[in-house]
Amino acid sequence: MKLSEIGEFDLIKAIEALAAGGARGEGVVKGIGDDAAIIRSAPGKVILVTTDLLLEGAHFQLVFTDPHRLGRKALAINLSDIAACGGRPTAFVISVAMPPETDVAFVKVLYEGILEQARQFNCSLVGGDTSKGRALMISLTLLGEAEEERVVYRSGAKHGDRIFVTGTVGDAALGLEQLKRGEQGGQCIERHLDPIPRVKAGEEIARQGLASAMIDISDGLAADLGHILEASGRGAQVQLPQIPFSKEYLKTIEQYYSDRYGLVLTGGEDYELLFTSPPEKEEAVVRLAQALGTPITMIGEIVEASKGLKVVGEDGKEYPIEQKGHDHFKT
Amino acid sequence: MKLSEIGEFDLIKAIEALAAGGARGEGVVKGIGDDAAIIRSAPGKVILVTTDLLLEGAHFQLVFTDPHRLGRKALAINLSDIAACGGRPTAFVISVAMPPETDVAFVKVLYEGILEQARQFNCSLVGGDTSKGRALMISLTLLGEAEEERVVYRSGAKHGDRIFVTGTVGDAALGLEQLKRGEQGGQCIERHLDPIPRVKAGEEIARQGLASAMIDISDGLAADLGHILEASGRGAQVQLPQIPFSKEYLKTIEQYYSDRYGLVLTGGEDYELLFTSPPEKEEAVVRLAQALGTPITMIGEIVEASKGLKVVGEDGKEYPIEQKGHDHFKT
Repeated sequence: MKLSEIGEFDLIKAIEALAAGGARGEGVVKGIGDDAAIIRSAPGKVILVTTDLLLEGAHFQLVFTDPHRLGRKALAINLSDIAACGGRPTAFVISVAMPPETDVAFVKVLYEGILEQARQFNCSLVGGDTSKGRALMISLTLLGEAEEERVVYRSGAKHGDRIFVTGTVGDAALGLEQLKRGEQGGQCIERHLDPIPRVKAGEEIARQGLASAMIDISDGLAADLGHILEASGRGAQVQLPQIPFSKEYLKTIEQYYSDRYGLVLTGGEDYELLFTSPPEKEEAVVRLAQALGTPITMIGEIVEASKGLKVVGEDGKEYPIEQKGHDHFKT
Repeated sequence: MKLSEIGEFDLIKAIEALAAGGARGEGVVKGIGDDAAIIRSAPGKVILVTTDLLLEGAHFQLVFTDPHRLGRKALAINLSDIAACGGRPTAFVISVAMPPETDVAFVKVLYEGILEQARQFNCSLVGGDTSKGRALMISLTLLGEAEEERVVYRSGAKHGDRIFVTGTVGDAALGLEQLKRGEQGGQCIERHLDPIPRVKAGEEIARQGLASAMIDISDGLAADLGHILEASGRGAQVQLPQIPFSKEYLKTIEQYYSDRYGLVLTGGEDYELLFTSPPEKEEAVVRLAQALGTPITMIGEIVEASKGLKVVGEDGKEYPIEQKGHDHFKT
């Protein structure tokens, strides 16, 4: 059955039925079905807003992924932004454009993926829009909440602060590379297709006041650390051998590259948290990592702005950073 | 200069510069430039969220409009949804996909249009995303705020309530028809291309507790009244001769149609407010219309559900409603 056969109104009814069975946070006064959704936020909290656009061809290839993982990822990348500010996700709206010849089953699985992720992170689908389009396009806006004085920005890094990263980096970029080479399955490919946002870690880092600055790794460790440095007016020295990578990464990268570190610095979409912390909070960070069961690794230190971003390799010499930031209009 | 020449990062910088000179509401703690925007909402208020998708070819034709009006309209249709709930608009995020060969000047004028509208209605651009796409696509999510007990839903219409509409209806649909026939200029075309949302009227109707149910006319008077009736579990009787239309509409429609009422019932995109009100509030509605300088016209009455929606024509007989609701996937 194609969308052109059931039509927009039956599609919206099907989505509403799925959403009704999905997560419904306590703050939702009115979800789907009126001119606007109505959300009650906790007293004294500020509202966080983030949005991301996913376009077939530009951000994903339907030959590599499936609608369930794609739905999960559309929400995950927004959850990661809320996590990077130390917020708690609450509600989201999602607009989807797709060709009229799209299978209705495809669309239902896409929304099931979105709603599964929403249940996992306790946030509610409260509205959206649908339209025909030449290619599949997903536009998602997620709201969150946080105590105003606990929100973590990119701009607070201070000279002498330690730089930490959660989990391991480079996996997602390596997974994408594997997909392009025709590989299937494995942990790196899974991380690319179905990233797990560090929502709990972000909330705890903020609640305990551990971070002076924080960002999620979407553009790549070097580029995202660069965003913190620019916003904070600082430089950084990163120890390449301290950057955590997974066993799967290590095993796989050697099949493709002579330099195992390349994707660790410039590979995007890991959706790990990168944050800076004053030296006296180091112990608390270690305790949090243990409590969460999430590795948090110190990889360097904030220095003065004039020194820029310097990465020191295994041989103690400076390691060149080849910036490969993705420009949607130039490539 | 094309987008492919300046690239995504310079485009985002240009948009940030425009936004910095634009409206910046008092509640915005952090706008563009971090992982999420941070907004402080007034104590005791609920948050309203609405979103709309505009796709070239499906929702607009670039041969009919210009980027400035298109930008204004992208925000206007969302402002109208907040107005229909009786809210005050606060902040919005906007994602735009466009072909790499798009002129940078076009994009700047589009955002200038958006930001001009934002200043007019005192809300702030706080984030967004950009990407290449095969056609121009605008996805906008607008937040608003309201006192929880003052929010007006579609579902509160009661038997005996009067039905009111602001301004005049049918103009926008007639304007679109004129554009399709190669006409240019005039009030109806202007209303189609650059609708003015009834934000002040919506806020006042809610603040004074005048409406039992409210919606904005985007799908057409009959379809949108139908939404109120469905949500409220009621029927309605509408007096066709009481429906307000503009002089321009009256003058123009006779050139095209033998029946002057056709577009009044089924033509969409007027973005007027349609609301129901208990009989004892009728005088207060009249006073509000005078205070605002906005016509508010009584066009019918809410009846029991079993009677459905009935429209009575000039001859006192039932007037047939030809539903022409637009289905994006079927057409």
